[in-house]
Amino acid sequence: MKESINIGMAGYGMIGRLHSMNYGQLPFIYPGTIPRPVLHTVCASSAASAQAAAREGGFHHYTTSLEELTASPAIDVIDVSLPNSLHRKAVCMALQAGKAVYCEKPLAATLEDAQAMAAAADKSGAPFGMVFQYRFLPAILKAREILAAGRLGRIFTWRAVYLHSGYQNPQRPMSWRMRKEEGGCGALGDLGSHIIDLLRYLTGDFASVQGHLETFIQQRPIARGAAEMSTVSVDDAVWFKARMKNGSVGTLEASRFATGTMEDLRVEIHGERGALKFDLMDPGFLHYFDEAKAQGDFGGERGWQRLESAQHYPGALTPPARAPIGWQRSHTENQYAFLRAISQNRLPSPGLEDGLKVQQVIDAVERSAKAGGTWINV
Amino acid sequence: MKESINIGMAGYGMIGRLHSMNYGQLPFIYPGTIPRPVLHTVCASSAASAQAAAREGGFHHYTTSLEELTASPAIDVIDVSLPNSLHRKAVCMALQAGKAVYCEKPLAATLEDAQAMAAAADKSGAPFGMVFQYRFLPAILKAREILAAGRLGRIFTWRAVYLHSGYQNPQRPMSWRMRKEEGGCGALGDLGSHIIDLLRYLTGDFASVQGHLETFIQQRPIARGAAEMSTVSVDDAVWFKARMKNGSVGTLEASRFATGTMEDLRVEIHGERGALKFDLMDPGFLHYFDEAKAQGDFGGERGWQRLESAQHYPGALTPPARAPIGWQRSHTENQYAFLRAISQNRLPSPGLEDGLKVQQVIDAVERSAKAGGTWINV
Amino acid sequence: MKESINIGMAGYGMIGRLHSMNYGQLPFIYPGTIPRPVLHTVCASSAASAQAAAREGGFHHYTTSLEELTASPAIDVIDVSLPNSLHRKAVCMALQAGKAVYCEKPLAATLEDAQAMAAAADKSGAPFGMVFQYRFLPAILKAREILAAGRLGRIFTWRAVYLHSGYQNPQRPMSWRMRKEEGGCGALGDLGSHIIDLLRYLTGDFASVQGHLETFIQQRPIARGAAEMSTVSVDDAVWFKARMKNGSVGTLEASRFATGTMEDLRVEIHGERGALKFDLMDPGFLHYFDEAKAQGDFGGERGWQRLESAQHYPGALTPPARAPIGWQRSHTENQYAFLRAISQNRLPSPGLEDGLKVQQVIDAVERSAKAGGTWINV
Amino acid sequence: MKESINIGMAGYGMIGRLHSMNYGQLPFIYPGTIPRPVLHTVCASSAASAQAAAREGGFHHYTTSLEELTASPAIDVIDVSLPNSLHRKAVCMALQAGKAVYCEKPLAATLEDAQAMAAAADKSGAPFGMVFQYRFLPAILKAREILAAGRLGRIFTWRAVYLHSGYQNPQRPMSWRMRKEEGGCGALGDLGSHIIDLLRYLTGDFASVQGHLETFIQQRPIARGAAEMSTVSVDDAVWFKARMKNGSVGTLEASRFATGTMEDLRVEIHGERGALKFDLMDPGFLHYFDEAKAQGDFGGERGWQRLESAQHYPGALTPPARAPIGWQRSHTENQYAFLRAISQNRLPSPGLEDGLKVQQVIDAVERSAKAGGTWINV
Repeated sequence: MKESINIGMAGYGMIGRLHSMNYGQLPFIYPGTIPRPVLHTVCASSAASAQAAAREGGFHHYTTSLEELTASPAIDVIDVSLPNSLHRKAVCMALQAGKAVYCEKPLAATLEDAQAMAAAADKSGAPFGMVFQYRFLPAILKAREILAAGRLGRIFTWRAVYLHSGYQNPQRPMSWRMRKEEGGCGALGDLGSHIIDLLRYLTGDFASVQGHLETFIQQRPIARGAAEMSTVSVDDAVWFKARMKNGSVGTLEASRFATGTMEDLRVEIHGERGALKFDLMDPGFLHYFDEAKAQGDFGGERGWQRLESAQHYPGALTPPARAPIGWQRSHTENQYAFLRAISQNRLPSPGLEDGLKVQQVIDAVERSAKAGGTWINV
Repeated sequence: MKESINIGMAGYGMIGRLHSMNYGQLPFIYPGTIPRPVLHTVCASSAASAQAAAREGGFHHYTTSLEELTASPAIDVIDVSLPNSLHRKAVCMALQAGKAVYCEKPLAATLEDAQAMAAAADKSGAPFGMVFQYRFLPAILKAREILAAGRLGRIFTWRAVYLHSGYQNPQRPMSWRMRKEEGGCGALGDLGSHIIDLLRYLTGDFASVQGHLETFIQQRPIARGAAEMSTVSVDDAVWFKARMKNGSVGTLEASRFATGTMEDLRVEIHGERGALKFDLMDPGFLHYFDEAKAQGDFGGERGWQRLESAQHYPGALTPPARAPIGWQRSHTENQYAFLRAISQNRLPSPGLEDGLKVQQVIDAVERSAKAGGTWINV
Repeated sequence: MKESINIGMAGYGMIGRLHSMNYGQLPFIYPGTIPRPVLHTVCASSAASAQAAAREGGFHHYTTSLEELTASPAIDVIDVSLPNSLHRKAVCMALQAGKAVYCEKPLAATLEDAQAMAAAADKSGAPFGMVFQYRFLPAILKAREILAAGRLGRIFTWRAVYLHSGYQNPQRPMSWRMRKEEGGCGALGDLGSHIIDLLRYLTGDFASVQGHLETFIQQRPIARGAAEMSTVSVDDAVWFKARMKNGSVGTLEASRFATGTMEDLRVEIHGERGALKFDLMDPGFLHYFDEAKAQGDFGGERGWQRLESAQHYPGALTPPARAPIGWQRSHTENQYAFLRAISQNRLPSPGLEDGLKVQQVIDAVERSAKAGGTWINV
Repeated sequence: MKESINIGMAGYGMIGRLHSMNYGQLPFIYPGTIPRPVLHTVCASSAASAQAAAREGGFHHYTTSLEELTASPAIDVIDVSLPNSLHRKAVCMALQAGKAVYCEKPLAATLEDAQAMAAAADKSGAPFGMVFQYRFLPAILKAREILAAGRLGRIFTWRAVYLHSGYQNPQRPMSWRMRKEEGGCGALGDLGSHIIDLLRYLTGDFASVQGHLETFIQQRPIARGAAEMSTVSVDDAVWFKARMKNGSVGTLEASRFATGTMEDLRVEIHGERGALKFDLMDPGFLHYFDEAKAQGDFGGERGWQRLESAQHYPGALTPPARAPIGWQRSHTENQYAFLRAISQNRLPSPGLEDGLKVQQVIDAVERSAKAGGTWINV
């Protein structure tokens, strides 16, 4: 194993900063199991912001040029934390330069971009890791194990929502996140991508979808308090029904209009022999209902079990396993899984194909919505 | 006010027995406010069961003839607790005889039946009360007040589910509830009718719907352990999206395949200025989020409030207002509201129109589902 | 089995009314299993209130004389729902007359009264049932089964609280409940008696206690808004530590000063091999932690199970078993258990001895508190 | 402001590792607000472990000598993460050398040690920060604000528990944590110190206490599966009642025998005008009951509000404010508050006096327990 691995950060917004912080935690949590990640170079859009990022993060170098970043022979990994519409360019350059890529979700702004990136990855052969951090919550890891062991039997139905609030205020001014050409996507891409991936991860591939997009507030002030208005070009909320390849049927909803919610990502899965529930606002626990137990002692021990799941980070040395974990830890573990995979010459998981499949579902939902809600095969 | 009011029970299954028991509680909970309900006559399908019902319930008389029941001059109210497909006949006979009617939900097995009953009611002029008991949970009463006062502002979105379990076991044998000609409806009519009514009660009328019905297990043993199979002719689960007349959009789901659930009726409503959540499994509380409070002291008191709602049964003398209430109480209060209305010559609420409107939504959902999920105006 | 059983109600306050209402429900819930309870005679302090009670409840007779009530040869059961300080007189008269007695908790206002009643019961031989209704919540029935089966192993520790609110307002005026000579007891007798009984029921007898009583507000207005003050002579809150005969140690708290609480009775028990939790505000569920499961599949299924417990009312015909139950049901079941026992010539449980043992603990706690908190053997 | 601040780590167990990891996060969360913490030197008990710690953490130097560590002129802060019994020596040396000290809780193994450290701090004048990390949970920060603003009115009563599990297994072998001479304390010092500090922080100083210590299992195998036994010399669990200087009365419990618990630290406070509840297992929320709201619209909005509290880390740039936080963050914030205070020449809070006062309560509880539970003034 190499002593260290050099990270090149493409983008240093909230997410770029978060990734950078998390790399530095890995040697303490999992000492000796991966090369030490080194914050080598940060690339931001202006020299001033790049320099500030370098100072803040302790990067050895900074640049405003993706070309320079991806060409640097010292760099092992390009971490793509850019706005969605810039993913394609950065990823393709990194892959062409043979760098390992670690890419934030969604993979791309459009299915076309995603397919181009997949082609570039095929050609390059360099390892590619996706960020779908919720896979790494211990509750989700345990859900995957329970499902993989067939403990739920045939899956009949499920529901998944990812609810944010804040946009329901009509005075909230326009921003790049509400313009398709910049943000690339609304609630569907931003929030929906997470629940699409989780459903795939837990129950397998999508077969067909029936979608509905809604933009509740179509005109917003161009700035706080401004009289001039601008047109919102993305969805505020999306609902879609889906049939999975395993025959199950369910609904997904992603919304920025759910007053009162914070990070309310909830998944519920019902099978012939059991059921699972998860809520991101209580991220350390998986709720499991085992139909078999209903037949046991004491007239049956029928009831949901709230499973602790801390033991799913087995080698972790700190913090203590019984203490509650937060949202941040899911990112740290995603980064760890990526670095461990590439240091062992294994394919990172989730990888580009996972990002691409999510993009295919998003695209099918958009096409169904445009067609007034017909079923579309994925 | 009359001293007493004579009840004629049409049907004495689980629900008929429940109503009968509840009438006897009203003089203790609300003494002196309504005529004392008297269990006068019970009508069941066989003489033996009618006699047993009379003995059990302390009815003065029993019969097997709806004609006899509805013709009895001593009877003031006909309580229709029969299977859905028999509602039309009993209701029309009672109305023709000028009796007040108290009818279990859903109003009818088909929209056609419901319309015939509405015509009979128009002609008769006799008072008509529906059972939609969940309206009478204190949390729902409070939700109605909060919404009526405009505290949520413009409503954007909502979701409602009513989930039962038990049918997901493929060994569960066929029963009348799974045969359209007898039960009249599957999850849509049985469970869906409740959440359709609640949504209407809270947010107003439905404008259009897009439905999907699913029968997961189409063949079932004719009896426990039997090899011979029979065909299920109703839905196991239903999903529908709806646009309300107030412009809001949301989803409803009713299912008998939700392993792990009990009486999981949940409603969530998000508006511009606040939000509400309710769960029948925690029936004494309404969760309320007030966006305005987020701007107050202490950096904002942002968070859901779990409202006690016991004060919504203001004259109730027993049990103590702070003690947890159960499912049964919603029925008791529905019966009380009906008897109080007719004793004061007011129109019972909910009434026939509420039953009819629910039936129209059910019918529209079925037609949309048959057409592959097109939007249908209600 | 007799056809019917005649009830004589001694007292018709909130609790007397509740009992009267509940007797009428039993034939519907458990038809054919007990003689039909008949509301025969009600005894209240004034002729007007007795007559009103009779009319409201449909009693055949009314009286203001306990002598007349207990002497009536037609009456089978005397239901003692009087203020605590009057229990002794009514119970002793009923027992002397050979009537079965059903007595509200606490058994008596003082240990001396309780002992006199025990002596009267011994002499009479008539059956004696106590009201400790929380024993009849299905969650508590299940907890008892789990404990009786040894599933928790050696019990180490537990905690129990019963918290009410309302008295923390210093403007709340004086009432009979705050005068020792009338109410007989404060939080200790009123609320503490319930948790003392539950602990006994679940984990066995008390060995020794160490108590502390507090009266936070010692002077209160004699009426709402009055300037004149009166002295509170009972405890507002009580805390006590106890060692049980099984060697376990824990704490109990009862309070009327717990702002924000409703009927917050909570019990938690920790043993070598498992643990249990119960909260009266969620009365249909028992939380069970099984240490053994922590060693099983998937790195251990470690976590609390929220057990449904509806199956603990096995013969109940209504309401449906999966629907949430409320506080009232615990009383109905206590009454049913009493009537079933006496109709089958079995000893009612809980019985007088249970009431007496609770009184002994109360007395020991009071003596310990007076002595500044020394340990006192029960 | 200096560019950087050099940390000398005394001890590198689980907690030392955690602190070291957290220092590296501060520049990302709060860029530009404190000097960059630099992991300068680590001191561990053996050369091998010190070298391994240095490699893992990226420390510039390592040593086995506290003398060398505290004498190093380059070092600004000594972080004392040693076993309790070694605190006194390390702290006194650091103070004598004029270093800022950051000390894990409890301050010391004995009150005598704590007083010696206080004397050394007085003499030195160097800044002294304590670790009582739970003060820095946003819910606790908000609770402090609400209490400081008098929103609860007069405080009447409260309860606090800190429950761990694991020791209830009699096969669990002896360890240094169960030997007084090494661990210094059992549940009282380890867990009790946290809830003592929280109560002080929220409601002010302790006036008097009445304590009880229990060692349920007094003999344990010297190693897993060993036949030879060793004597436990610390408490497994502690209960104490306390009267605070503000007149309120309540109970505290700390236990390692609470089967089924994880990090179950719960605090409930009841005042005349409101109440607060907190549970460490749901660390992002404070539950607040405002008696005043019970008098408002809709028959009163009576009910607990679950306050989000993310806005209490106002300058934090990552992770997003609405995402759930975990246990780790409380430590990160404690470290940040300490470094910010000393970089601004303010007294760190919590400081030595807070550690000392907790030690005085611990000592009083031990003395009361030894005396059979008499009240002891703190």
